[in-house]
Amino acid sequence: MAGLTYKEAGVDIDAGERLVERIKPLAARTKIPELLDGVGGFAGLCALPTDIADPVLVSGTDGVGTKLKLAFELDRHDTVGVDLVAMCVNDVLTVGARPLFFLDYFATGRLDVDRAEQVVAGIAEGCTQAGCALLGGETAEMPGMYADGEYDLAGFAVGVVSRAAILDRRRVRPGDVVLGVASSGLHSNGYSLARRVLLGAAAPCRLDETPPGLDRPLGETLLTPTRIYAGACRALLAAAEVHALCHVTGGGLPGNLPRVLPPDVDLVIDERAWPEPAIFGLIARLGGVDRAELRRTFNLGVGLVAIVPPAAVSAAMAALEGAGEAVFRIGEAVPRGGAAGSAPQVLFS
Amino acid sequence: MAGLTYKEAGVDIDAGERLVERIKPLAARTKIPELLDGVGGFAGLCALPTDIADPVLVSGTDGVGTKLKLAFELDRHDTVGVDLVAMCVNDVLTVGARPLFFLDYFATGRLDVDRAEQVVAGIAEGCTQAGCALLGGETAEMPGMYADGEYDLAGFAVGVVSRAAILDRRRVRPGDVVLGVASSGLHSNGYSLARRVLLGAAAPCRLDETPPGLDRPLGETLLTPTRIYAGACRALLAAAEVHALCHVTGGGLPGNLPRVLPPDVDLVIDERAWPEPAIFGLIARLGGVDRAELRRTFNLGVGLVAIVPPAAVSAAMAALEGAGEAVFRIGEAVPRGGAAGSAPQVLFS
Repeated sequence: MAGLTYKEAGVDIDAGERLVERIKPLAARTKIPELLDGVGGFAGLCALPTDIADPVLVSGTDGVGTKLKLAFELDRHDTVGVDLVAMCVNDVLTVGARPLFFLDYFATGRLDVDRAEQVVAGIAEGCTQAGCALLGGETAEMPGMYADGEYDLAGFAVGVVSRAAILDRRRVRPGDVVLGVASSGLHSNGYSLARRVLLGAAAPCRLDETPPGLDRPLGETLLTPTRIYAGACRALLAAAEVHALCHVTGGGLPGNLPRVLPPDVDLVIDERAWPEPAIFGLIARLGGVDRAELRRTFNLGVGLVAIVPPAAVSAAMAALEGAGEAVFRIGEAVPRGGAAGSAPQVLFS
Repeated sequence: MAGLTYKEAGVDIDAGERLVERIKPLAARTKIPELLDGVGGFAGLCALPTDIADPVLVSGTDGVGTKLKLAFELDRHDTVGVDLVAMCVNDVLTVGARPLFFLDYFATGRLDVDRAEQVVAGIAEGCTQAGCALLGGETAEMPGMYADGEYDLAGFAVGVVSRAAILDRRRVRPGDVVLGVASSGLHSNGYSLARRVLLGAAAPCRLDETPPGLDRPLGETLLTPTRIYAGACRALLAAAEVHALCHVTGGGLPGNLPRVLPPDVDLVIDERAWPEPAIFGLIARLGGVDRAELRRTFNLGVGLVAIVPPAAVSAAMAALEGAGEAVFRIGEAVPRGGAAGSAPQVLFS
């Protein structure tokens, strides 16, 4: 073996640099006033907003899961970046924080600059929707780690909240009202089950066809980007007293709502209170997936939950609707029915 | 298909929860006073140090690259987490920041709880070395995305620096002295080339054998964790005036040093000034890799560079040595020799 180069070993530094040049204008569009530009050759720098007293940093990380496989199958790469930002930012929002900046990790076997640019364009679009800066990122070319044409994504969001304004579970009281904010579909959870049912070996469906009950082809329905609730939360927190915010992610309503409840409160949820998107019924029917499994795998149409005192309901609903969300009164907080020491319950009426 | 569950579709939520329980004590060991415990069900919360005036946040993300393949081949998973933290934190250190917290993303095809726990134990060890809190993480089980037994890792570090103390490239002047701090080996760069040369189809080497010139078996040599320079940088910045810090990562000395240079300064580096670890010569010899390619792929024994004014050299070297580092005077800053508008050069004497 003579004169071997890094490129021949599968890592094309020049392609990486071409990508960096294409990312620059995309990231520049996400600039916020707090960003320190032109310093920090190795890391991104961001000051704190000056209007947040006693600031506390809030951070979350997530990926897009096997929703990526749909992007590969449909060869459409400009939406999963929105999902990536959404999954991280929606977590950060739940403590009442304002998203500040975001970083991404993009890993692939052989770097395709065009495809990677589409992915980052989606990430920049997500950052714009979330009102945060795309502060940095890593592109990893790892020969032999990913199948041809495939990639993985990880995201990291940092937000900031005034210490006195942190939403924590102690605020929720019996009598509080549960508001459900509509999701845009599956968001980024449950795709391994959805794909197995809809597109597996016994596949009854094709991505380019529109199954009965759906209004768009299956592929388009499944690839719909996760809704980013940054604008909704900002409007809500400015307009109404809020006791808790819950991101309905992996685990669904029964898996996530207990994360924002104090030990002495249960929730009763009425599943007839919102229109469940047809895709979930399709998965249940074709896969014979029972209701409990469906509930703890998918959001079933509710992507964000706000728990508010009764007096705040109208202001909260008006604020969310004003921010462009569909919102439903889906349940209420009740005194804890279970044994002491057990976890709070989500009861479906 | 009847009664399909998420677990049958390849995602074992219970295994994920078992892992979370095992991670808790590992993360707890990395606690710092700024951490807000017990709030934020969806995100990690961390206050700012009170002794840093006008704080600016500094953030970086990175992965471990195909060094992971060595962990798979050696079935040793408790060191790559140190690499992950090192790659992110060493970037954050270069602006003079103190690492504050870290988050990780761990993605695999089928979650092996024991293996994942070993990885996270390494991450927690890295956080302890860096003096930052392991604030959160995501474990993604993605059926069909990774080969059996394989995984990918991404890391994300946030640090903080006083605005007035930010190291930026404008500080470096001709006459400044370049100090090289020893690396622990390849760190986490160039593994696709190293593996191709040492372990490829024409593989002359075995991981369990010790090639001539090395003091340990090849596998152990290659898997040596990346050095974390947090303690070294803290000691250095407290003891001496520093004009720039450079993390020698992908791109080597010629790729990284220009990132900390102002437009009117070049560097002259004397490669005989430090002992180059034998592993680099072995790769060069067996792969026929020429010197320029070697330089821009590997750190060649210098993992961190500090550029200091001449008057600060002895204090800087003493501080670094006191922090347990091996440090060498490897070059100096000179007036820019190239055409106006071109990038600063690193010249090897």
